Amino acid sequence: MPDQTNDRNLRSWVEPANRADCEFPIQNLPYGSFSVAGGERRLGVAIGDQVLDLRGAADEGLLKLDEAQGALRKQTLNPLMSAGPKVWTALRTQLSRLLEAGNPVLRDDAALRTRLLHPMANATLHLPFDVTEYTDFYASRHHAFNVGSMFRGPENALPPNWLHIPIGYNGRASSVVVSGTPVRRPWGQVKGPDEAAPRFAPSARFDIELEMGAIVGVASDTPLSVAEAFEHIFGYVLLNDWSARDIQAWEYQPLGPFQSKATATTVSPWVVTASALEPFRVNTPEREVPLLPHLRDVGPMLYDITLDVGLRPEGGAETVISRTNYREMYYSAAQQLAHHSACGCPMRVGDLLGSGTISGPDRENRGSLLELSWGGKEPIEIDGGSRSFIEDGDTLTLRGHAQGEGYRIGFGACTAQVLPARRAMAEQ
Amino acid sequence: MPDQTNDRNLRSWVEPANRADCEFPIQNLPYGSFSVAGGERRLGVAIGDQVLDLRGAADEGLLKLDEAQGALRKQTLNPLMSAGPKVWTALRTQLSRLLEAGNPVLRDDAALRTRLLHPMANATLHLPFDVTEYTDFYASRHHAFNVGSMFRGPENALPPNWLHIPIGYNGRASSVVVSGTPVRRPWGQVKGPDEAAPRFAPSARFDIELEMGAIVGVASDTPLSVAEAFEHIFGYVLLNDWSARDIQAWEYQPLGPFQSKATATTVSPWVVTASALEPFRVNTPEREVPLLPHLRDVGPMLYDITLDVGLRPEGGAETVISRTNYREMYYSAAQQLAHHSACGCPMRVGDLLGSGTISGPDRENRGSLLELSWGGKEPIEIDGGSRSFIEDGDTLTLRGHAQGEGYRIGFGACTAQVLPARRAMAEQ
Repeated sequence: MPDQTNDRNLRSWVEPANRADCEFPIQNLPYGSFSVAGGERRLGVAIGDQVLDLRGAADEGLLKLDEAQGALRKQTLNPLMSAGPKVWTALRTQLSRLLEAGNPVLRDDAALRTRLLHPMANATLHLPFDVTEYTDFYASRHHAFNVGSMFRGPENALPPNWLHIPIGYNGRASSVVVSGTPVRRPWGQVKGPDEAAPRFAPSARFDIELEMGAIVGVASDTPLSVAEAFEHIFGYVLLNDWSARDIQAWEYQPLGPFQSKATATTVSPWVVTASALEPFRVNTPEREVPLLPHLRDVGPMLYDITLDVGLRPEGGAETVISRTNYREMYYSAAQQLAHHSACGCPMRVGDLLGSGTISGPDRENRGSLLELSWGGKEPIEIDGGSRSFIEDGDTLTLRGHAQGEGYRIGFGACTAQVLPARRAMAEQ
Repeated sequence: MPDQTNDRNLRSWVEPANRADCEFPIQNLPYGSFSVAGGERRLGVAIGDQVLDLRGAADEGLLKLDEAQGALRKQTLNPLMSAGPKVWTALRTQLSRLLEAGNPVLRDDAALRTRLLHPMANATLHLPFDVTEYTDFYASRHHAFNVGSMFRGPENALPPNWLHIPIGYNGRASSVVVSGTPVRRPWGQVKGPDEAAPRFAPSARFDIELEMGAIVGVASDTPLSVAEAFEHIFGYVLLNDWSARDIQAWEYQPLGPFQSKATATTVSPWVVTASALEPFRVNTPEREVPLLPHLRDVGPMLYDITLDVGLRPEGGAETVISRTNYREMYYSAAQQLAHHSACGCPMRVGDLLGSGTISGPDRENRGSLLELSWGGKEPIEIDGGSRSFIEDGDTLTLRGHAQGEGYRIGFGACTAQVLPARRAMAEQ
């Protein structure tokens, strides 16, 4: 049952939060790490067009978390997550009350408001959590079918294990950056099908992957059930798993993607909590073959989150190149985490699980340029041109929100411009 | 040119350090993290059969690192590594002088010796560094040929990319444990070639991989040359990359090993510095095809390190089941790190790079049971029995040393006993 903080009728005294198209209504309250005018980083909560300073609010006595109080004074969310689900709920409840329309404490104290609320437009947003480890999955049926069809034909598109386990691989945590950080086109070893030998060159097939990232908030070192795993997820971000397809094609056999995925992984600046997404839970699609008991669905653990991707050439206008929904996933993040822990793999607070590229049934639902342009054979039209893969200067932007009745739960844009590759390895 | 700390004629006043078969002579001085009688963890240096307390020695004014002094008071090596190669050299030089036979400062002060030197037999050894991220490679020619032959026949044993790049994949840092930590046989999803559907079961083909681990001591976020990469490596450990072959066989296509490698990764307790190994540098084997310039050899960057593996059944005697040498690697850790950084992947202090299984040309040189028993088809003889894969209660021990004239540089044993799997998932 949705708790009080999710009530669709709640309104905030931060007026822009009440607009139907605002990404940060009082039902959302996502966490980030911000600074203003070169000052120190602090944790913050997005409300309307403002950021509430959590450290400041704690110091003013407006937030009280008992033994977890110190977590409000840190620069990233990890200590707060480590404090556990009861603290997560307590903080969300206090923030909801503080920002609710009828509460005069902060609303009517102009000096206090000036100290604690900062216009989001003036804030620099940092990576909201320390990424302990990063795992990426391959768990959207349409994406796996599209990619498999391109490489092995539609009859053999899905690997034999695909319908039985959420295929995953370990990614590179050091590559994770916050939205807004430019991404430099990588160099790598590549070899075209008609070339006799490999070359070391800038990637010519640099791509996006539209994903959601789930953040582990509870540590474990024994296998988790799907139900337990669901309770361990603190929140979600949008995630762009930048991928160099030509580097990937040459390197990925037999041990999987490595340098093709390690240049950058961009996440949205606000962590939307599982609590805020509670009203938007939906079931995974019907199983094509039954899952083994340890991975079986035990309730609706996906979310109805509308997603799109915009591509804007340097100096040009943006074209929306993909529209899809998180509910297209075959496996939920809870199933991915349960699988991840099955061998006894220790999971830690701050572990980031990428959903895998989220594609839907139609061409416009494809979550990567590899699929959209069918490996470069069918370039897509964009405003003033066409694209098979990313060109230098392009800005790629992921957006997403869950649509409630009269309000929406947004994530903030997950965006980056792609810079040209270094001219040569010597130019470091 | 070997520096003074590597002089083969150096002797220590810690007498057992001067025995020809001692793993920890004054030419070694490896770093670890230890505690005594439940006390706090401290950094230490192994000398003979003793551990020198670095924090204590710093507090007594015996070690002086200027602005890096605080690193000597930490519980893991990461801050010391972060201080950079000049500090590494300064500390090694000071330790060598302090422990050298002719220096009376500590030698002749019984009370000080009692405070600062602890018998290794009484010390608990902890993981010596925080593993930031863990990467594992597949870079021994004989191992790749053996495994490839088993699965694809000898004609197609090596993947097309193998002679051009050191194939690597991201592993799971949370799985890394120090020698002595028991390892529990994992559960996982498996499917035999004749089975119609997968099962969730304890691994029946649990295995070792005999590897060396290189530890990154200098951070970077641009591509490194091989020469730069070599200078960024702080030191080496023995590494056992426990592998569940049946889980691996079912999961690894198309994105590589995941749960099969995430149960545990055991490392030896002492980090042997690159400085201590300097006299033992050797070239990689002759290239079968030339490497591209960014990966080309620029000097001897492998080491002549004799390695073996012992298997001891519960209550039984140990049999040495493998004997090989680190110089069998086709790629050096410097080449692996250069490749790792090629796409702009940020590398951080504490990153651990597993060499990949080190196998040599003959059957007794194979670094895994998979190879030794040829996939279980040719079980090996051990004292009182035979083995295809690990049985419950078996203790596996990796050992290694570089042999100098009259002294040897050892790593300490890298050992663990394998415990039975949990009886059922409910038993967590």
